Amino acid sequence: MSEAAQKQMNPTASRPVRCIVKLGGAAITNKGELESIDEESLRSSCAQLRQAMSHSGAAEKVLGMDWSRRIGDPAEPVVDAESFSEMGGLGLDTNFVVVHGAGSFGHFQASRSGVHKGGLHSTLVKAGFVATRISVTSLNQEIVRALAKEGIPSVGMSPFACGWSTKQRNLVSANASQIIQSLHAGFVPVLHGDAVLDESLDCTILSGDVIIRHLAQLLSPKYVVFLTDVHGVYDRPPTDPNAVLLKEIEVDDNGSWSIVKPALQKGVEISVAAHDTTGGMETKILEAAAIARLGVDVYITKVGTEHSLRALKGDTSWEGWLGTVIRSSK
Amino acid sequence: MSEAAQKQMNPTASRPVRCIVKLGGAAITNKGELESIDEESLRSSCAQLRQAMSHSGAAEKVLGMDWSRRIGDPAEPVVDAESFSEMGGLGLDTNFVVVHGAGSFGHFQASRSGVHKGGLHSTLVKAGFVATRISVTSLNQEIVRALAKEGIPSVGMSPFACGWSTKQRNLVSANASQIIQSLHAGFVPVLHGDAVLDESLDCTILSGDVIIRHLAQLLSPKYVVFLTDVHGVYDRPPTDPNAVLLKEIEVDDNGSWSIVKPALQKGVEISVAAHDTTGGMETKILEAAAIARLGVDVYITKVGTEHSLRALKGDTSWEGWLGTVIRSSK
Repeated sequence: MSEAAQKQMNPTASRPVRCIVKLGGAAITNKGELESIDEESLRSSCAQLRQAMSHSGAAEKVLGMDWSRRIGDPAEPVVDAESFSEMGGLGLDTNFVVVHGAGSFGHFQASRSGVHKGGLHSTLVKAGFVATRISVTSLNQEIVRALAKEGIPSVGMSPFACGWSTKQRNLVSANASQIIQSLHAGFVPVLHGDAVLDESLDCTILSGDVIIRHLAQLLSPKYVVFLTDVHGVYDRPPTDPNAVLLKEIEVDDNGSWSIVKPALQKGVEISVAAHDTTGGMETKILEAAAIARLGVDVYITKVGTEHSLRALKGDTSWEGWLGTVIRSSK
Repeated sequence: MSEAAQKQMNPTASRPVRCIVKLGGAAITNKGELESIDEESLRSSCAQLRQAMSHSGAAEKVLGMDWSRRIGDPAEPVVDAESFSEMGGLGLDTNFVVVHGAGSFGHFQASRSGVHKGGLHSTLVKAGFVATRISVTSLNQEIVRALAKEGIPSVGMSPFACGWSTKQRNLVSANASQIIQSLHAGFVPVLHGDAVLDESLDCTILSGDVIIRHLAQLLSPKYVVFLTDVHGVYDRPPTDPNAVLLKEIEVDDNGSWSIVKPALQKGVEISVAAHDTTGGMETKILEAAAIARLGVDVYITKVGTEHSLRALKGDTSWEGWLGTVIRSSK
């Protein structure tokens, strides 16, 4: 458990969260194009989240909660206040937390300035810190709006603004009381990888994966879902035609992990994208393994598929389910 | 002093902030038009802030810190990393805090749903809370970007995300440690009026003016500037051709206030816009008087004028200065 998690003894954390969802940067943005959202993936992720939250499971009339204009859009937003007033409640289990990565937002600004390396005496790093936050918070705003459009009561929360900070890149201050208060009030907190202050380096980048691990420790969700742009974890780069999807990975108490399904002979290669300032699939497996050791099942699967919908519902027992389950061996 | 301010005994608050600036909603947005920024007022406010921060006072080459694209803009952002690296420092006294109002952002969503009245069991109020936050945070994002464009290292911080909350509309939890940390790291925090959780009402609206008073208590700035769309406080609605600008108001220990300049015979009428969910000029005078009682001078003046530039520099002693000074009688 991280130092920051150990420090916190919040009694209100006792009510477990159903699911923490990671919307991977690669899943919801077009990684090759600067600051470009994959609108269809984002829309389908939000619609599936709503389905997973729905008590009835049936498709109901969705009342949107984004009542803002788009820049350049002359149309006034439509607010169906009467229908809202007539609803007895949302009919949703909103006990979810959403964390998203940066994808094509933030990475450009961070890597151009070296924010992840720290050193705020450098004017370039200071400017890069500001530029990185502008980029990642504008993505956060778009994701909050997309969720709100699906009638999910989402609230954006930046780790930097929440006072989260690191020391030598490890979380040392990460109070989750406002996240817990928001959950209790029926809102869905939406966090993101962010530029943060660091006690020894001045500043660094805090990745969405590290945030998820910390929240899993504090909130003890029933399961954690990573939505990504491939079906799960493979034994070699998924672009390799011989790549095999690892369906089940078990993690034991000392943190070492073994592949349960399918049976493989050879060692596992891991794809790491060189431009990814917070690490690629390797970081993801390590973070997922750390979560699994807490006794929380982790599902890694492809965004916008029937497999992602099942994962969000916590039901991956179907024979045809495609994805990677990482769980504790105990 | 508010309950929230009394609770906080933060030793790092000892280093005084130079100035807290309120960018009034009426000053930087077009109040009659939904979610419309007054681009020229915002740009000039940011340019004047930079001038007020500048050590040299001379116009230097501005290196922008907004490296993001505009939606729909195909051009890649230009980052002059080399010039940044060559700078010894920013040459700016960044010990400022910016707080902005909502203007034509947020009010529509808040008043349509009654967020300020509370009651999250109502689906309409819950949706309105989400919609209000989307609107005010999108304005915050635009203001952070406008400041960053002027080379000011601005960081957006939402009071809701910072964990600020109220009880019966009075601030009870408003930790400023992250704001102080950010100032120490050389950043300019940018806060805003926000929808927040309320212990007794479930939720309400926290106005920018209340935020300023709280921060003035905690940070003891040298002065506070309110930038608005009129020259200051008048003895009657400023649209009245006989309206007289009140140039100097003194506040005594028991909170009552008197007009020092000019000498007036009659009582003072106050203009309050009915659609303003957080109160208009009356709230502003009361909040300004509360700040003045702390021994902090308050300057209320018109955005985008030579008077606002002088106010931001803390120099309102010029004979021709137009605005209202509110100070303690002691």
